[in-house]
Amino acid sequence: MSDSVKYLLDEEHMPKSWYNLVADLPSPPPAVLHPGTGQPVGPDDLAPLFPMALIGQEVTQEREVEIPEPVQDVYRQWRPAPLFRARKLEKALDTPARIYYKYEGVSPTGSHKPNTAVPQAFYNQQEGVKRLTTETGAGQWGSSIAYAGQYFGLEVDVYMVKVSYQQKPYRRALMQTFGARCVPSPSTETNAGRAILAQHPDSTGSLGIAISEAVEMAAQRDDTKYALGSVLNHVLLHQTIIGQEAMMQMEMANDDPDIVIGCAGGGSNLAGLAFPYIGRNLREGKKTRIVAVEPASCPTLTRGRYAYDFGDTASLTPLVKMYTLGSAFVPSPIHAGGLRYHGMAPLVSHAKALGLLEARAVAQTECFKAGVLFAKAEGVVPAPESTHAVKAAIDEALKCKESGESKAILFNLSGHGYFDMQAYTDFFDGKLVDEPYDEAMLAKALDGLPDVAAE
Amino acid sequence: MSDSVKYLLDEEHMPKSWYNLVADLPSPPPAVLHPGTGQPVGPDDLAPLFPMALIGQEVTQEREVEIPEPVQDVYRQWRPAPLFRARKLEKALDTPARIYYKYEGVSPTGSHKPNTAVPQAFYNQQEGVKRLTTETGAGQWGSSIAYAGQYFGLEVDVYMVKVSYQQKPYRRALMQTFGARCVPSPSTETNAGRAILAQHPDSTGSLGIAISEAVEMAAQRDDTKYALGSVLNHVLLHQTIIGQEAMMQMEMANDDPDIVIGCAGGGSNLAGLAFPYIGRNLREGKKTRIVAVEPASCPTLTRGRYAYDFGDTASLTPLVKMYTLGSAFVPSPIHAGGLRYHGMAPLVSHAKALGLLEARAVAQTECFKAGVLFAKAEGVVPAPESTHAVKAAIDEALKCKESGESKAILFNLSGHGYFDMQAYTDFFDGKLVDEPYDEAMLAKALDGLPDVAAE
Repeated sequence: MSDSVKYLLDEEHMPKSWYNLVADLPSPPPAVLHPGTGQPVGPDDLAPLFPMALIGQEVTQEREVEIPEPVQDVYRQWRPAPLFRARKLEKALDTPARIYYKYEGVSPTGSHKPNTAVPQAFYNQQEGVKRLTTETGAGQWGSSIAYAGQYFGLEVDVYMVKVSYQQKPYRRALMQTFGARCVPSPSTETNAGRAILAQHPDSTGSLGIAISEAVEMAAQRDDTKYALGSVLNHVLLHQTIIGQEAMMQMEMANDDPDIVIGCAGGGSNLAGLAFPYIGRNLREGKKTRIVAVEPASCPTLTRGRYAYDFGDTASLTPLVKMYTLGSAFVPSPIHAGGLRYHGMAPLVSHAKALGLLEARAVAQTECFKAGVLFAKAEGVVPAPESTHAVKAAIDEALKCKESGESKAILFNLSGHGYFDMQAYTDFFDGKLVDEPYDEAMLAKALDGLPDVAAE
Repeated sequence: MSDSVKYLLDEEHMPKSWYNLVADLPSPPPAVLHPGTGQPVGPDDLAPLFPMALIGQEVTQEREVEIPEPVQDVYRQWRPAPLFRARKLEKALDTPARIYYKYEGVSPTGSHKPNTAVPQAFYNQQEGVKRLTTETGAGQWGSSIAYAGQYFGLEVDVYMVKVSYQQKPYRRALMQTFGARCVPSPSTETNAGRAILAQHPDSTGSLGIAISEAVEMAAQRDDTKYALGSVLNHVLLHQTIIGQEAMMQMEMANDDPDIVIGCAGGGSNLAGLAFPYIGRNLREGKKTRIVAVEPASCPTLTRGRYAYDFGDTASLTPLVKMYTLGSAFVPSPIHAGGLRYHGMAPLVSHAKALGLLEARAVAQTECFKAGVLFAKAEGVVPAPESTHAVKAAIDEALKCKESGESKAILFNLSGHGYFDMQAYTDFFDGKLVDEPYDEAMLAKALDGLPDVAAE
């Protein structure tokens, strides 16, 4: 099987628990603070927004959290997800590197997002919730929670960042197919949305604004809770099934990655693949390099500040310590809508601050160039978000070519680009450009970080 | 595993040969005739268009044709394809029927088409061909041959039915991503295209016209051959890997289908799933029902004539005996572009004439209704073509509900609808209507069948 390109796990080997990095960290992540009191939040503070099961997962110290049987049942519709060796890409690059990718595009909505949407919908249903509100960027998360909500009989309202709502009508249609209601954000349905529109009637929106809207709506009704597609500990936890599977599959390939790469918006896709490897580094003293790749137009890890900030724009969420560009930062309307977030998951941020991972930022056009190269070689068109990981993997492989080293590179192909072909069309037509952020706006957004940041 | 919904075959169990129904038929299919002489065509007549290996497969009587190792290698990127039990759909319908679907949407281009695109590209490359021309309807075939051509280093020119070219820009982008050239048909590049445009400047095109263009271009250059995505014996042969896998997977499920359903445009998707079952019926005296489902607006099997006809509009192809609406028939511009063909594969037609399968026609809006119901239950959005099979499967399941019978229903979910969300958007917006064909046009097209039909 030396020419094998696909590594499939049997269903029986699908992980039965999620992996919690917190258990292996040398220091705990900083507390989440109540925005009013500045004191650490407790379960009661979060109860209006999340079911108790998820709040428990948010703070647990256990290394392993069992995956409930009904969630495993749904996972098995597409999991274990395949891992591929990109032999044709290696050949196209003429590199001695061995390139592997874990492919999450096989899920019902074509990305890694259902890994957390399914358990979130399940736990909410278990606790009697009838309706979920959420936000979405490119629509990968929105369509996934629409799918999962439908599966467990929940209503779903999705606030979709306006620029993506306009650029990606087909993910909207997908949400509608699954029975969800999709609202362009900023909207007139919420105080947060109306306030933004009063100031910026032409606002193209941001994840921060959409989160404000979804949180506000969830807080209004007892039967309604809020679901977040990234950033929070429990979301990252659910995604670790990716890395756990990948580890077993790399063993099937008789190989082990020297470098593990993921694109990073809110951080859950990166964490999903990388946290099990970071944990192994910590426990076994291994030196697997972990690389987070973010868009140059929203460079949270590479240009942001590690400080307490709000997760949303209207300052409704608790304060979390994270790499942030400031919640007032509005990224350029790049096609990788899923990466347009001012902050970064606190756990990913903490790992970065501890030196457990490195980060780099790449420009949009370079990513699409890499995406087309990958598609031609491997026959899979990456989502715009995933092209960031592809670009970094190709760069590492080319470094190997230069140095003559034969490293093993593993990246997470978090989703396919079948819903994003307009972006590729724009790229082919030369319409797609790199839109750097406004430095003055960044400086102002960082200046506006809440006072607690100075502590 | 009584609650299992997914049946996966190990790679080692992937079939090593394709199945040839001709070997089991009680009578051979009628000869293909030269349009000039009216005599059966020989290999030399076909050599300008196809490599000898495929011509050999077109006429072979062998029951099994070995799948070359390099083709198996590419197949293994996504095959064996999964088979699912649609338990949630069964529940939604409250039916005692057991519904199974074979899912071909896991392929690189999201449909069953690469099953034949890959071997076609391979055999052409083996015989020194540098360029392939082809036609495509919805773009499933065009994107698949673009993918396969890229894989084996061939240039690919695709003539795409104009209405689909306009309705489905994203499949175009997919072809472009794989490096193919995509031309709206009728085009001004060929005599056939120019002739149509002179008569009907606003022609929305048809598969028949696009075939004329692709055949004309292939005949002009020695290094160029033609590739067809359905209809021909060798194409149907390649698709039988679907049914062979499904048979093993149904055994894994400890079940056996009473009814086997496929949508039928050119016939290869239906044949792929059904021919192994028809062969088993013939060899073992089983009575598995085979149902072909076609669009009401292009009802080849249910309203066409079993007669000799041209495969294209410009009368460039050999004459084949098939169910046909006449090569002058232009179907309404429904979204299921892959089913808009005036003819039907000669082997499928022969099987229909022998009473080995039945056929029914369904209206577009009913199909989308079924598609949405399926998507909500199963989490997979079917391609518009595939919704025809979904609709028929649901109807059979509802009949079981009425009669109280617990039948096993197996259908081919030939592809996902991720590139076709505009069609779903139109459906939700109430813009999608049933466009019946013009009876007078059909009568005229049937009157215009070539003389040999009267023999």
